[in-house]
Amino acid sequence: MGWAQKEFALSPKRRGFHLVTSEVVGHLPEISSIRKGVLHLFIKHTSASLTVNENADPTVRGDMERHFNQAVPENAPYYEHDTEGSDDIPAHIKASILGSSVTVPISDGQLNLGTWQGIYLCEHRNSGGAREVVATIFGD
Amino acid sequence: MGWAQKEFALSPKRRGFHLVTSEVVGHLPEISSIRKGVLHLFIKHTSASLTVNENADPTVRGDMERHFNQAVPENAPYYEHDTEGSDDIPAHIKASILGSSVTVPISDGQLNLGTWQGIYLCEHRNSGGAREVVATIFGD
Amino acid sequence: MGWAQKEFALSPKRRGFHLVTSEVVGHLPEISSIRKGVLHLFIKHTSASLTVNENADPTVRGDMERHFNQAVPENAPYYEHDTEGSDDIPAHIKASILGSSVTVPISDGQLNLGTWQGIYLCEHRNSGGAREVVATIFGD
Repeated sequence: MGWAQKEFALSPKRRGFHLVTSEVVGHLPEISSIRKGVLHLFIKHTSASLTVNENADPTVRGDMERHFNQAVPENAPYYEHDTEGSDDIPAHIKASILGSSVTVPISDGQLNLGTWQGIYLCEHRNSGGAREVVATIFGD
Repeated sequence: MGWAQKEFALSPKRRGFHLVTSEVVGHLPEISSIRKGVLHLFIKHTSASLTVNENADPTVRGDMERHFNQAVPENAPYYEHDTEGSDDIPAHIKASILGSSVTVPISDGQLNLGTWQGIYLCEHRNSGGAREVVATIFGD
Repeated sequence: MGWAQKEFALSPKRRGFHLVTSEVVGHLPEISSIRKGVLHLFIKHTSASLTVNENADPTVRGDMERHFNQAVPENAPYYEHDTEGSDDIPAHIKASILGSSVTVPISDGQLNLGTWQGIYLCEHRNSGGAREVVATIFGD
Protein backbone atom coordinates (compact mmCIF):
# COMPACT_ATOMS: atom_id res chain seq x y z
CA MET A 1 0.00 0.00 0.00
CA GLY A 2 1.12 3.52 -0.66
CA TRP A 3 0.97 6.32 1.85
CA ALA A 4 2.04 9.86 1.41
CA GLN A 5 1.60 12.99 3.43
CA LYS A 6 2.66 16.42 2.33
CA GLU A 7 2.14 19.95 3.54
CA PHE A 8 2.09 22.86 1.10
CA ALA A 9 0.67 26.33 0.66
CA LEU A 10 -2.06 27.36 -1.75
CA SER A 11 -1.20 30.72 -3.27
CA PRO A 12 -3.01 33.77 -1.85
CA LYS A 13 -6.48 34.32 -3.25
CA ARG A 14 -8.86 37.23 -2.99
CA ARG A 15 -11.99 36.75 -0.88
CA GLY A 16 -14.34 34.37 -2.64
CA PHE A 17 -14.60 30.82 -3.96
CA HIS A 18 -11.75 29.54 -6.13
CA LEU A 19 -11.24 26.40 -8.19
CA VAL A 20 -7.94 24.84 -7.06
CA THR A 21 -8.05 21.29 -8.44
CA SER A 22 -5.08 21.85 -10.76
CA GLU A 23 -3.07 23.67 -8.12
CA VAL A 24 -3.66 20.83 -5.64
CA VAL A 25 -2.91 18.04 -8.10
CA GLY A 26 0.23 19.87 -9.21
CA HIS A 27 1.60 19.45 -5.69
CA LEU A 28 0.71 15.75 -5.55
CA PRO A 29 2.36 13.62 -8.24
CA GLU A 30 1.93 10.76 -5.72
CA ILE A 31 -1.72 10.46 -6.81
CA SER A 32 -0.63 8.84 -10.08
CA SER A 33 0.75 5.81 -8.26
CA ILE A 34 -2.49 4.96 -6.42
CA ARG A 35 -4.79 2.44 -8.05
CA LYS A 36 -7.63 2.81 -5.55
CA GLY A 37 -7.63 5.03 -2.51
CA VAL A 38 -8.49 8.50 -1.30
CA LEU A 39 -7.00 11.96 -0.96
CA HIS A 40 -7.71 13.78 2.31
CA LEU A 41 -7.03 17.49 2.04
CA PHE A 42 -7.11 19.56 5.25
CA ILE A 43 -6.76 23.32 5.59
CA LYS A 44 -4.88 24.53 8.69
CA HIS A 45 -6.91 27.72 9.11
CA THR A 46 -10.26 28.64 10.64
CA SER A 47 -11.26 31.46 8.29
CA ALA A 48 -10.99 29.61 4.97
CA SER A 49 -12.46 26.28 3.95
CA LEU A 50 -12.50 23.53 1.33
CA THR A 51 -15.43 22.13 -0.60
CA VAL A 52 -16.25 20.32 -3.85
CA ASN A 53 -18.50 22.05 -6.36
CA GLU A 54 -19.09 23.01 -9.99
CA ASN A 55 -15.93 23.41 -12.07
CA ALA A 56 -17.13 25.13 -15.24
CA ASP A 57 -19.10 28.34 -14.78
CA PRO A 58 -17.50 31.12 -12.71
CA THR A 59 -20.93 32.54 -11.86
CA VAL A 60 -21.43 29.53 -9.55
CA ARG A 61 -18.41 30.64 -7.51
CA GLY A 62 -19.71 34.22 -7.51
CA ASP A 63 -23.17 33.14 -6.39
CA MET A 64 -21.63 31.03 -3.60
CA GLU A 65 -19.75 34.10 -2.33
CA ARG A 66 -22.85 36.30 -2.56
CA HIS A 67 -25.05 33.71 -0.88
CA PHE A 68 -22.76 33.09 2.08
CA ASN A 69 -22.25 36.84 2.56
CA GLN A 70 -26.00 37.20 2.85
CA ALA A 71 -26.52 34.09 5.03
CA VAL A 72 -23.61 34.91 7.37
CA PRO A 73 -23.55 38.72 7.40
CA GLU A 74 -20.87 41.00 8.75
CA ASN A 75 -21.72 43.04 11.84
CA ALA A 76 -24.68 40.95 12.99
CA PRO A 77 -25.98 42.42 16.25
CA TYR A 78 -25.36 39.17 18.14
CA TYR A 79 -21.62 38.95 17.39
CA GLU A 80 -19.22 39.52 20.30
CA HIS A 81 -15.98 38.53 18.51
CA ASP A 82 -15.31 41.78 16.65
CA THR A 83 -11.70 42.81 17.35
CA GLU A 84 -10.12 41.34 14.19
CA GLY A 85 -12.27 43.10 11.58
CA SER A 86 -15.86 42.69 10.49
CA ASP A 87 -14.92 39.90 8.09
CA ASP A 88 -13.41 37.72 10.83
CA ILE A 89 -16.27 36.07 12.72
CA PRO A 90 -18.33 35.50 9.55
CA ALA A 91 -15.21 33.77 8.17
CA HIS A 92 -15.09 31.40 11.15
CA ILE A 93 -18.79 30.56 10.83
CA LYS A 94 -18.55 29.99 7.06
CA ALA A 95 -15.51 27.75 7.63
CA SER A 96 -17.53 25.40 9.84
CA ILE A 97 -20.53 25.37 7.50
CA LEU A 98 -18.35 24.45 4.52
CA GLY A 99 -15.75 22.39 6.35
CA SER A 100 -12.00 22.29 6.84
CA SER A 101 -11.38 19.19 4.75
CA VAL A 102 -12.47 17.29 1.69
CA THR A 103 -11.92 13.60 1.00
CA VAL A 104 -11.93 12.60 -2.66
CA PRO A 105 -11.58 9.08 -4.09
CA ILE A 106 -8.56 8.19 -6.21
CA SER A 107 -9.03 5.59 -8.95
CA ASP A 108 -6.42 4.41 -11.45
CA GLY A 109 -3.98 7.17 -10.60
CA GLN A 110 -6.41 10.08 -10.79
CA LEU A 111 -8.85 11.94 -8.58
CA ASN A 112 -12.20 10.28 -9.26
CA LEU A 113 -14.29 13.44 -9.42
CA GLY A 114 -17.48 13.78 -11.43
CA THR A 115 -17.27 15.51 -14.80
CA TRP A 116 -18.42 18.81 -13.36
CA GLN A 117 -16.68 18.64 -9.99
CA GLY A 118 -13.65 20.52 -8.76
CA ILE A 119 -12.02 21.33 -5.43
CA TYR A 120 -12.67 24.84 -4.14
CA LEU A 121 -10.64 26.93 -1.76
CA CYS A 122 -13.17 29.18 -0.05
CA GLU A 123 -11.34 32.30 1.10
CA HIS A 124 -13.51 34.04 3.67
CA ARG A 125 -11.11 36.83 4.72
CA ASN A 126 -10.52 40.03 2.78
CA SER A 127 -6.76 39.40 2.90
CA GLY A 128 -6.23 35.79 3.89
CA GLY A 129 -2.79 35.28 2.39
CA ALA A 130 -1.35 31.90 1.46
CA ARG A 131 -3.19 28.97 3.02
CA GLU A 132 -1.41 25.89 4.38
CA VAL A 133 -2.94 22.51 3.61
CA VAL A 134 -2.01 18.96 4.60
CA ALA A 135 -2.62 16.30 1.96
CA THR A 136 -2.76 12.67 3.06
CA ILE A 137 -3.01 10.04 0.33
CA PHE A 138 -3.73 6.45 1.13
CA GLY A 139 -4.57 3.50 -1.02
CA ASP A 140 -2.86 0.80 -3.00
CA MET B 1 -5.74 -5.13 5.40
CA GLY B 2 -8.74 -5.05 3.11
CA TRP B 3 -9.38 -2.40 0.51
CA ALA B 4 -12.28 -2.13 -1.84
CA GLN B 5 -13.50 0.55 -4.16
CA LYS B 6 -16.69 0.40 -6.12
CA GLU B 7 -18.75 2.80 -8.19
CA PHE B 8 -22.51 2.44 -8.43
CA ALA B 9 -25.67 4.45 -9.01
CA LEU B 10 -28.30 5.29 -6.43
CA SER B 11 -31.74 5.02 -8.01
CA PRO B 12 -33.46 8.28 -9.02
CA LYS B 13 -35.20 10.09 -6.19
CA ARG B 14 -37.59 13.01 -6.15
CA ARG B 15 -36.30 16.32 -4.76
CA GLY B 16 -35.86 16.01 -1.01
CA PHE B 17 -33.97 14.08 1.65
CA HIS B 18 -33.95 10.27 1.39
CA LEU B 19 -32.75 7.50 3.67
CA VAL B 20 -30.42 5.29 1.62
CA THR B 21 -28.54 3.22 4.21
CA SER B 22 -30.02 -0.08 2.99
CA GLU B 23 -29.54 0.78 -0.67
CA VAL B 24 -25.88 1.66 -0.02
CA VAL B 25 -25.15 -1.40 2.12
CA GLY B 26 -26.84 -3.61 -0.46
CA HIS B 27 -24.16 -2.59 -2.95
CA LEU B 28 -21.32 -3.25 -0.50
CA PRO B 29 -21.13 -6.85 0.79
CA GLU B 30 -17.41 -6.06 1.30
CA ILE B 31 -18.33 -4.26 4.55
CA SER B 32 -18.97 -7.59 6.24
CA SER B 33 -15.30 -8.59 5.95
CA ILE B 34 -13.93 -5.50 7.73
CA ARG B 35 -13.30 -5.80 11.45
CA LYS B 36 -12.38 -2.14 12.01
CA GLY B 37 -12.23 0.50 9.34
CA VAL B 38 -14.27 3.14 7.55
CA LEU B 39 -16.54 3.56 4.55
CA HIS B 40 -16.02 6.70 2.50
CA LEU B 41 -18.97 7.44 0.23
CA PHE B 42 -18.58 10.20 -2.36
CA ILE B 43 -21.24 11.57 -4.73
CA LYS B 44 -20.00 12.56 -8.19
CA HIS B 45 -22.46 15.42 -8.62
CA THR B 46 -22.67 19.04 -7.53
CA SER B 47 -26.42 19.37 -7.11
CA ALA B 48 -27.02 16.50 -4.69
CA SER B 49 -25.27 15.68 -1.44
CA LEU B 50 -24.78 13.09 1.30
CA THR B 51 -25.28 13.47 5.03
CA VAL B 52 -25.99 11.40 8.15
CA ASN B 53 -29.17 12.12 10.09
CA GLU B 54 -32.25 10.68 11.80
CA ASN B 55 -33.45 7.36 10.43
CA ALA B 56 -36.89 6.92 11.95
CA ASP B 57 -39.34 9.78 11.46
CA PRO B 58 -40.00 10.93 7.87
CA THR B 59 -41.02 14.38 9.12
CA VAL B 60 -37.32 15.02 9.86
CA ARG B 61 -36.52 14.54 6.16
CA GLY B 62 -39.46 16.78 5.23
CA ASP B 63 -38.36 19.49 7.65
CA MET B 64 -34.81 19.33 6.28
CA GLU B 65 -36.15 19.90 2.75
CA ARG B 66 -38.41 22.76 3.89
CA HIS B 67 -35.64 24.37 5.94
CA PHE B 68 -33.03 24.31 3.18
CA ASN B 69 -35.55 25.64 0.64
CA GLN B 70 -36.14 28.60 2.94
CA ALA B 71 -32.44 29.12 3.81
CA VAL B 72 -31.24 28.79 0.20
CA PRO B 73 -34.16 30.18 -1.81
CA GLU B 74 -34.75 29.96 -5.54
CA ASN B 75 -34.52 33.17 -7.53
CA ALA B 76 -32.55 35.18 -4.95
CA PRO B 77 -31.85 38.61 -6.45
CA TYR B 78 -28.08 38.13 -6.14
CA TYR B 79 -27.89 34.95 -8.26
CA GLU B 80 -26.21 35.23 -11.67
CA HIS B 81 -26.14 31.51 -12.52
CA ASP B 82 -29.73 31.11 -13.76
CA THR B 83 -29.62 29.38 -17.13
CA GLU B 84 -30.25 25.81 -15.91
CA GLY B 85 -33.51 26.40 -14.04
CA SER B 86 -34.34 28.11 -10.79
CA ASP B 87 -33.55 24.94 -8.79
CA ASP B 88 -29.96 24.74 -10.09
CA ILE B 89 -27.88 27.29 -8.19
CA PRO B 90 -29.66 26.62 -4.88
CA ALA B 91 -28.80 22.94 -5.47
CA HIS B 92 -25.10 23.78 -5.81
CA ILE B 93 -25.13 25.87 -2.65
CA LYS B 94 -26.99 23.22 -0.64
CA ALA B 95 -24.52 20.60 -1.90
CA SER B 96 -21.59 22.49 -0.39
CA ILE B 97 -23.41 23.16 2.89
CA LEU B 98 -24.26 19.49 3.33
CA GLY B 99 -21.19 18.00 1.66
CA SER B 100 -20.33 15.63 -1.15
CA SER B 101 -19.15 12.77 1.04
CA VAL B 102 -19.72 10.99 4.31
CA THR B 103 -17.23 8.81 6.15
CA VAL B 104 -18.73 6.23 8.51
CA PRO B 105 -16.85 3.83 10.79
CA ILE B 106 -17.09 0.08 10.20
CA SER B 107 -16.84 -2.20 13.23
CA ASP B 108 -17.14 -5.99 13.26
CA GLY B 109 -18.42 -6.17 9.70
CA GLN B 110 -21.12 -3.51 10.00
CA LEU B 111 -21.50 0.24 9.64
CA ASN B 112 -21.08 1.57 13.18
CA LEU B 113 -23.89 4.12 13.10
CA GLY B 114 -25.79 5.29 16.14
CA THR B 115 -29.19 3.72 16.79
CA TRP B 116 -31.01 6.63 15.19
CA GLN B 117 -28.57 7.38 12.37
CA GLY B 118 -28.86 6.69 8.68
CA ILE B 119 -27.21 7.86 5.46
CA TYR B 120 -29.22 10.40 3.48
CA LEU B 121 -29.09 11.18 -0.20
CA CYS B 122 -30.09 14.83 -0.44
CA GLU B 123 -31.55 15.40 -3.91
CA HIS B 124 -31.58 19.12 -4.57
CA ARG B 125 -32.77 19.10 -8.21
CA ASN B 126 -36.38 18.69 -9.30
CA SER B 127 -35.32 15.88 -11.66
CA GLY B 128 -31.86 14.77 -10.65
CA GLY B 129 -31.96 11.26 -12.06
CA ALA B 130 -29.74 8.42 -10.85
CA ARG B 131 -26.74 9.58 -8.84
CA GLU B 132 -23.29 8.02 -9.17
CA VAL B 133 -21.34 7.38 -5.98
CA VAL B 134 -17.87 6.00 -5.30
CA ALA B 135 -17.52 3.85 -2.19
CA THR B 136 -14.05 3.27 -0.78
CA ILE B 137 -13.75 0.83 2.10
CA PHE B 138 -10.55 0.50 4.08
CA GLY B 139 -9.72 -1.31 7.27
CA ASP B 140 -8.63 -4.69 8.44
CA MET C 1 0.80 0.20 9.38
CA GLY C 2 -1.09 0.98 12.54
CA TRP C 3 -4.82 0.82 12.91
CA ALA C 4 -6.87 1.54 15.95
CA GLN C 5 -10.54 1.99 16.57
CA LYS C 6 -12.04 2.98 19.85
CA GLU C 7 -15.44 4.08 21.08
CA PHE C 8 -15.79 6.45 24.01
CA ALA C 9 -18.11 9.07 25.47
CA LEU C 10 -17.51 12.79 25.58
CA SER C 11 -18.70 14.16 28.91
CA PRO C 12 -22.08 15.96 28.94
CA LYS C 13 -21.93 19.56 27.81
CA ARG C 14 -24.47 22.35 27.97
CA ARG C 15 -26.02 23.52 24.68
CA GLY C 16 -23.39 25.36 22.66
CA PHE C 17 -20.00 24.93 21.00
CA HIS C 18 -17.22 23.34 23.09
CA LEU C 19 -13.52 22.85 22.53
CA VAL C 20 -12.79 19.15 23.05
CA THR C 21 -9.34 18.64 21.52
CA SER C 22 -7.73 17.73 24.86
CA GLU C 23 -10.59 15.50 25.90
CA VAL C 24 -10.42 13.63 22.58
CA VAL C 25 -6.62 13.29 22.57
CA GLY C 26 -6.72 12.09 26.17
CA HIS C 27 -8.72 9.08 25.02
CA LEU C 28 -6.32 8.31 22.16
CA PRO C 29 -2.72 7.62 23.23
CA GLU C 30 -2.54 5.61 19.97
CA ILE C 31 -2.02 8.88 18.07
CA SER C 32 1.53 9.13 19.38
CA SER C 33 2.58 5.99 17.50
CA ILE C 34 1.46 7.26 14.06
CA ARG C 35 4.09 8.95 11.92
CA LYS C 36 1.73 10.00 9.14
CA GLY C 37 -1.95 9.26 8.98
CA VAL C 38 -5.36 10.57 9.93
CA LEU C 39 -7.85 10.52 12.79
CA HIS C 40 -11.49 10.06 11.83
CA LEU C 41 -13.85 11.04 14.64
CA PHE C 42 -17.55 10.22 14.25
CA ILE C 43 -20.40 11.16 16.57
CA LYS C 44 -23.16 8.56 16.93
CA HIS C 45 -25.98 11.10 17.39
CA THR C 46 -28.11 13.24 15.12
CA SER C 47 -28.58 16.26 17.37
CA ALA C 48 -24.93 17.08 18.07
CA SER C 49 -22.06 17.52 15.64
CA LEU C 50 -18.30 17.87 15.26
CA THR C 51 -16.33 20.62 13.56
CA VAL C 52 -12.90 22.26 13.56
CA ASN C 53 -12.65 25.94 14.46
CA GLU C 54 -10.86 28.61 16.49
CA ASN C 55 -9.30 27.38 19.74
CA ALA C 56 -8.45 30.58 21.62
CA ASP C 57 -11.29 33.06 22.08
CA PRO C 58 -14.48 31.78 23.74
CA THR C 59 -16.52 34.53 22.05
CA VAL C 60 -16.08 32.62 18.77
CA ARG C 61 -17.89 29.64 20.31
CA GLY C 62 -20.58 31.98 21.67
CA ASP C 63 -21.05 33.66 18.30
CA MET C 64 -21.32 30.26 16.59
CA GLU C 65 -24.13 29.29 18.99
CA ARG C 66 -25.91 32.62 18.51
CA HIS C 67 -25.53 32.50 14.74
CA PHE C 68 -26.87 28.97 14.33
CA ASN C 69 -29.79 29.70 16.66
CA GLN C 70 -30.71 32.57 14.40
CA ALA C 71 -30.11 30.71 11.12
CA VAL C 72 -31.96 27.56 12.26
CA PRO C 73 -34.66 28.91 14.58
CA GLU C 74 -36.85 26.98 16.95
CA ASN C 75 -40.56 26.80 16.13
CA ALA C 76 -40.25 27.71 12.45
CA PRO C 77 -43.77 27.59 10.93
CA TYR C 78 -42.70 24.95 8.40
CA TYR C 79 -41.54 22.35 10.95
CA GLU C 80 -43.67 19.21 11.33
CA HIS C 81 -41.31 17.26 13.63
CA ASP C 82 -42.22 18.87 16.94
CA THR C 83 -42.96 16.11 19.44
CA GLU C 84 -39.52 16.01 21.11
CA GLY C 85 -39.23 19.65 22.16
CA SER C 86 -38.62 22.84 20.23
CA ASP C 87 -34.85 22.32 20.33
CA ASP C 88 -35.04 18.94 18.57
CA ILE C 89 -35.57 19.57 14.86
CA PRO C 90 -33.22 22.58 14.81
CA ALA C 91 -30.64 20.24 16.39
CA HIS C 92 -31.03 17.73 13.54
CA ILE C 93 -30.69 20.45 10.90
CA LYS C 94 -27.63 21.99 12.57
CA ALA C 95 -26.06 18.53 12.82
CA SER C 96 -26.21 18.08 9.05
CA ILE C 97 -24.93 21.60 8.33
CA LEU C 98 -21.92 21.10 10.61
CA GLY C 99 -21.44 17.38 10.06
CA SER C 100 -21.22 14.20 12.07
CA SER C 101 -17.51 13.65 11.63
CA VAL C 102 -14.16 15.36 11.32
CA THR C 103 -11.00 13.92 9.76
CA VAL C 104 -7.75 15.44 10.98
CA PRO C 105 -4.22 14.62 9.76
CA ILE C 106 -1.72 13.04 12.16
CA SER C 107 1.96 13.86 11.64
CA ASP C 108 4.87 12.69 13.79
CA GLY C 109 2.66 11.38 16.56
CA GLN C 110 0.42 14.44 16.91
CA LEU C 111 -2.75 15.88 15.43
CA ASN C 112 -1.54 18.20 12.68
CA LEU C 113 -3.90 21.07 13.37
CA GLY C 114 -3.15 24.70 12.60
CA THR C 115 -1.98 26.90 15.45
CA TRP C 116 -5.47 28.29 16.03
CA GLN C 117 -7.48 25.14 15.34
CA GLY C 118 -9.29 22.86 17.74
CA ILE C 119 -11.97 20.18 17.58
CA TYR C 120 -15.43 21.33 18.67
CA LEU C 121 -18.30 19.29 20.02
CA CYS C 122 -21.40 21.19 18.95
CA GLU C 123 -24.18 20.35 21.40
CA HIS C 124 -27.48 21.33 19.84
CA ARG C 125 -29.87 19.97 22.50
CA ASN C 126 -30.68 21.69 25.77
CA SER C 127 -29.84 18.48 27.65
CA GLY C 128 -27.92 16.23 25.30
CA GLY C 129 -26.07 14.16 27.89
CA ALA C 130 -22.85 12.27 27.19
CA ARG C 131 -22.11 11.81 23.50
CA GLU C 132 -20.68 8.60 22.05
CA VAL C 133 -17.96 8.93 19.44
CA VAL C 134 -16.02 6.39 17.37
CA ALA C 135 -12.38 7.23 16.69
CA THR C 136 -10.61 5.43 13.86
CA ILE C 137 -6.90 6.06 13.46
CA PHE C 138 -5.00 4.89 10.43
CA GLY C 139 -1.53 5.55 9.20
CA ASP C 140 1.97 4.23 9.58
